[in-house]
Amino acid sequence: MPKKSVRPPSEGSHCRAVPLDRVTICDKFWAPRLAQVGVEILPYQWEALNDRVPGAPRSHAFENLRIAAGQATGEFYGYVFQDSDIAKWLEAVGYSLSHRRNAELEALADRVIDVVAKAQQPDGYLDSYFTVKEPDKRWTNIRDRHEMYCAGHMVEAGVAYFEATGKRALLDVVCRLVDHIDSQFGPQPGKKRAYPGHEELELALVKLYRVTGEIRYLRLSEYFINERGAEPHYYDLEARERQEVREKPYDKTYNQSHLPVREQTAVVGHAVRAMYLYSGMADIAYETNDITLHEACRRLWENLTRRQMYLTGGIGSAEQGEAFTFDFDLPNDTAYTETCAAIGLVFWAHRMLQLDVDREYADAMERALYNGVLSGISLNGRAYFYVNPLEVWPAACEKRQDHAHVLPVRQPWFGCACCPPNVARLFASLGRYVYSESDDAIYVHLYVGSEGRFSVGGQSVVLAQTTDYPWAGVVDVKLTLEKDTEFSVALRLPGWCTAPQLSVNGKPVAVDSVSRKGYATITRCWRAGDTIRLELPMPVERIHARPEVREDAGRVALQRGPIVYCLEEVDNGPNLPAIALPRDARLSVDGQMRALGDVPVVSFAGCRRRAVTPTAPLYSAEEPAREDVVVRAIPYYAWGNRKPGEMLVWIGEV
Amino acid sequence: MPKKSVRPPSEGSHCRAVPLDRVTICDKFWAPRLAQVGVEILPYQWEALNDRVPGAPRSHAFENLRIAAGQATGEFYGYVFQDSDIAKWLEAVGYSLSHRRNAELEALADRVIDVVAKAQQPDGYLDSYFTVKEPDKRWTNIRDRHEMYCAGHMVEAGVAYFEATGKRALLDVVCRLVDHIDSQFGPQPGKKRAYPGHEELELALVKLYRVTGEIRYLRLSEYFINERGAEPHYYDLEARERQEVREKPYDKTYNQSHLPVREQTAVVGHAVRAMYLYSGMADIAYETNDITLHEACRRLWENLTRRQMYLTGGIGSAEQGEAFTFDFDLPNDTAYTETCAAIGLVFWAHRMLQLDVDREYADAMERALYNGVLSGISLNGRAYFYVNPLEVWPAACEKRQDHAHVLPVRQPWFGCACCPPNVARLFASLGRYVYSESDDAIYVHLYVGSEGRFSVGGQSVVLAQTTDYPWAGVVDVKLTLEKDTEFSVALRLPGWCTAPQLSVNGKPVAVDSVSRKGYATITRCWRAGDTIRLELPMPVERIHARPEVREDAGRVALQRGPIVYCLEEVDNGPNLPAIALPRDARLSVDGQMRALGDVPVVSFAGCRRRAVTPTAPLYSAEEPAREDVVVRAIPYYAWGNRKPGEMLVWIGEV
Repeated sequence: MPKKSVRPPSEGSHCRAVPLDRVTICDKFWAPRLAQVGVEILPYQWEALNDRVPGAPRSHAFENLRIAAGQATGEFYGYVFQDSDIAKWLEAVGYSLSHRRNAELEALADRVIDVVAKAQQPDGYLDSYFTVKEPDKRWTNIRDRHEMYCAGHMVEAGVAYFEATGKRALLDVVCRLVDHIDSQFGPQPGKKRAYPGHEELELALVKLYRVTGEIRYLRLSEYFINERGAEPHYYDLEARERQEVREKPYDKTYNQSHLPVREQTAVVGHAVRAMYLYSGMADIAYETNDITLHEACRRLWENLTRRQMYLTGGIGSAEQGEAFTFDFDLPNDTAYTETCAAIGLVFWAHRMLQLDVDREYADAMERALYNGVLSGISLNGRAYFYVNPLEVWPAACEKRQDHAHVLPVRQPWFGCACCPPNVARLFASLGRYVYSESDDAIYVHLYVGSEGRFSVGGQSVVLAQTTDYPWAGVVDVKLTLEKDTEFSVALRLPGWCTAPQLSVNGKPVAVDSVSRKGYATITRCWRAGDTIRLELPMPVERIHARPEVREDAGRVALQRGPIVYCLEEVDNGPNLPAIALPRDARLSVDGQMRALGDVPVVSFAGCRRRAVTPTAPLYSAEEPAREDVVVRAIPYYAWGNRKPGEMLVWIGEV
Repeated sequence: MPKKSVRPPSEGSHCRAVPLDRVTICDKFWAPRLAQVGVEILPYQWEALNDRVPGAPRSHAFENLRIAAGQATGEFYGYVFQDSDIAKWLEAVGYSLSHRRNAELEALADRVIDVVAKAQQPDGYLDSYFTVKEPDKRWTNIRDRHEMYCAGHMVEAGVAYFEATGKRALLDVVCRLVDHIDSQFGPQPGKKRAYPGHEELELALVKLYRVTGEIRYLRLSEYFINERGAEPHYYDLEARERQEVREKPYDKTYNQSHLPVREQTAVVGHAVRAMYLYSGMADIAYETNDITLHEACRRLWENLTRRQMYLTGGIGSAEQGEAFTFDFDLPNDTAYTETCAAIGLVFWAHRMLQLDVDREYADAMERALYNGVLSGISLNGRAYFYVNPLEVWPAACEKRQDHAHVLPVRQPWFGCACCPPNVARLFASLGRYVYSESDDAIYVHLYVGSEGRFSVGGQSVVLAQTTDYPWAGVVDVKLTLEKDTEFSVALRLPGWCTAPQLSVNGKPVAVDSVSRKGYATITRCWRAGDTIRLELPMPVERIHARPEVREDAGRVALQRGPIVYCLEEVDNGPNLPAIALPRDARLSVDGQMRALGDVPVVSFAGCRRRAVTPTAPLYSAEEPAREDVVVRAIPYYAWGNRKPGEMLVWIGEV
């Protein structure tokens, strides 16, 4: 099957992502993580998916598929979307094999794929829940029952595994599955006018189209996007059909079907659903050059990033519906900020970036990646946060119902286990996010020590990036090419950096003169051995939120480079909010924390409200005494890897 | 029936409350309120109780009793404790008639009492829910079904109405009711070892004992207090008896039956239940001189007031269970702080004060009265808050599930309407709280322009108090008595006042030399016309919370005299948390707010984070610009009487 090359972008700022096999990551920060995915994380997750991790909630996910495949007997167990955990795990295995073959893992994956293939029904249908438990209820509740969601994840797995291994087994399965779906749904007479209740299949179909060249897959995705929210509303018709009885009407903002997508202006509802939808919209805008869809994406983007995103790139503040609430409602201690939602933001930002090379997309991608995503997995890869708040008081988590969703300790697994394999597949595919190319340019979005292989100006070009990012801001880029060629190299100037410096072959280049939308674009006739150095000074900064964010009033957060910092009780004692950061305090990097993988520690001379006697009055006109304390902050993503306790991102200033 | 006089206290610091008919309130602050109770509030509430207030939730409370009395047909409607609304209303009518007879109101009350009497069953049982709806289920679920609670409120009503009018009809009803209860419950063989699921009857029985002299009533109350939490646990036995099926075991902290009361050290569970229990405990400690019970009360008091009370005297921070949570957990924006709970604190504090004349009890009583209680009723008496938070963002109340219990607009009534008649009965009985007496002393607890008539040192003494409290701190006291007599006059030195000044007949008295436990005690041979002047300077103070209260870190509240202040959006624009109070800003009283009944307005030169452009970044290393603003604060209790909007008590300091 010919690999369809991506259509050249029609706008100058379009670019295209680089296939995973053309990027090799070799730095000190990510390369060990990627190795960990193959060696530790995926094997661990396989154990969890097979209920062999002591103390972990039951998964049963693989067993469900084995039952559907006729290889085991028993009852289906788990959520209706339990299959998707296996799909995301397979997808992650695919990416992992792309950068490092691993015969054992591949053999295991082949065996899993064999079971998945056997679980597929003769007409192409694939979903262990319905096959085992409610075979007569297929496609009767598309709004709630996740069949298309599971299909989408299996499609992504099929594409990833094919791209990594060249093996078609799962790709063929998902083509049959999608052909079946295509036969049931669409605008044609006799088909149901449905679209995914949990978006995901839309973006997966674009991937499948790209790898197979089958235009029907793109059209089906386009149809899903365009049909969403249309009247008469499919979910109303479907609910009537199954004689649904509800106390309150279904809130269609939950799955973003309250309006046609081009009329949506604010991010609403379930945050992961939203990110997957917007990613699909960006894909369709890209593939079909649909300007109105791109504009809708931009409006939603602006709402999200200017009004509904945490400093960490965490999104979706409310536990109720795992959802967005409203502009500037960003509570720190009850923040839901699901790991998957931050991952979804990375997906969407990456797609927006291919449509329009503007650093704000890469900045958000980086913000989420280094903070709100990375916080979701422990340093050893075997413990997870589903919820990623910016302030934790364990007593409140234990005793207050409105904090009950905030678990102050990382978990071995979850009943709803969407996050762990999602982290694995993002890490394993990190190479996709570092660079883009166009016919006449190479784009460097993320600073990750790596080698990228490009086709630009009719030439093969190898770009070697050397850096200690995110701990140091010096980035060296060396080009290797056969013959001198003119093209551009565009390097992102991160929004967090106020004074970037640039040189080519040792000669300074005025950054302002070459920067456009936050990328320094050097266009010249490059020759082998040319080098670029980008220096990104990374002092510790005090970050302020917009005045509308009331939870952060009077507080600042510490950030160094892309890394948001936090205080932990283990370093600073209990009652972290009693600590204040004086306006004139110097913020310095003060050594490294060995227990957290030698991360730089930020410290400052702070003051703390001094403890009073137990019987002191609760309220007094006397100001509590303050004492001087040395305060130590660690990267937010690394919290919860030592002794359990409080955590705080936004620190009061005095 | 002889009125039993209260046993003289055995400790020097004991005192006794003064009957309502011996205190006449005649000031500018409370006297109009008390008049309003009779003229406006009670008639309005009667309309609400009879479903004649447009837009108010249905009550049906009187109709339920009419059905039980055989005077109407139909179904019971409402909560199982719906009768208690009528009882509290009757009690309030009684108090109101004590200070101002009102023939129309009295005739109405007589008619209501007649219906109540007819609703009573031949064996004395009285509860319209069970009589109408589940007559065979009487006394089968004492834990949850409020029969004893309703009985307690009816007892309080019977006592109040008898004391005010001398009419025995309702008193006789409640004696029969209590005799019935006494026949069913107690330590004697053949009786059930139950005690109230919602405490209330305990304190009511002490009142009934005091007015009737019937020792059985005191013993029954004592039994209820002593039996609470004993093993085998009555609620377990009872639940087994009715074959109750529950998902989780019943949480006995909810109604404070998790431990015998003398072993309880922290306030827990439903806050109103807790206050009524502790009030009953204090009553029994007082009547029986039970030191261990008094000590238990002291421990609970210390936990409450040092760790679990808001600045406003609001208590019970959590919506879940309308309950206490844990030490120092005092969120401002989700605070439940039910009006009834603050009223309960007044009840308890008043009883603690009779046991031990220490200003901390009177201070808490005053704090709750002027802030967390008074906030529960609108200035016109026809609109109420059930929940009294210290910070309100209407958008969050509307859109966030964890804020849904916070109603930003006062309501005409509630489905669960416990608070409105509770406020009415407290206001109408305010005279009870101002003074106490002992054989050789008069105690002035609250500064309220009033006349009190005492029996001290074998003499009738009239004490006339003149003051503009709470707006001004000068208190003049004039004594009238027939012949010169030695006794003490003890005046509370409020905890909020740092520099009180005292003089007798114009001659200064060194406050320190005469003060004990926060009361300035002047012992001398008084003669007619003697005057005392107490001056309590009331600058506007910045109040700090203990360092453990994380929600208030970096913030101060404004208080003047006993009055806590707040900011409202109508005076200061939206986004109140963007306003900060500079450390050097002068706080001044700046005129009066006519719309709020000429309350003094506090103002200061504040600064406000300046609004940014809609597309500005959400996070930035640049500090938001600040602009100078004049900020106006009004008394907390008066908020929500003008245009709806935000409200804020704790203000950030810069």
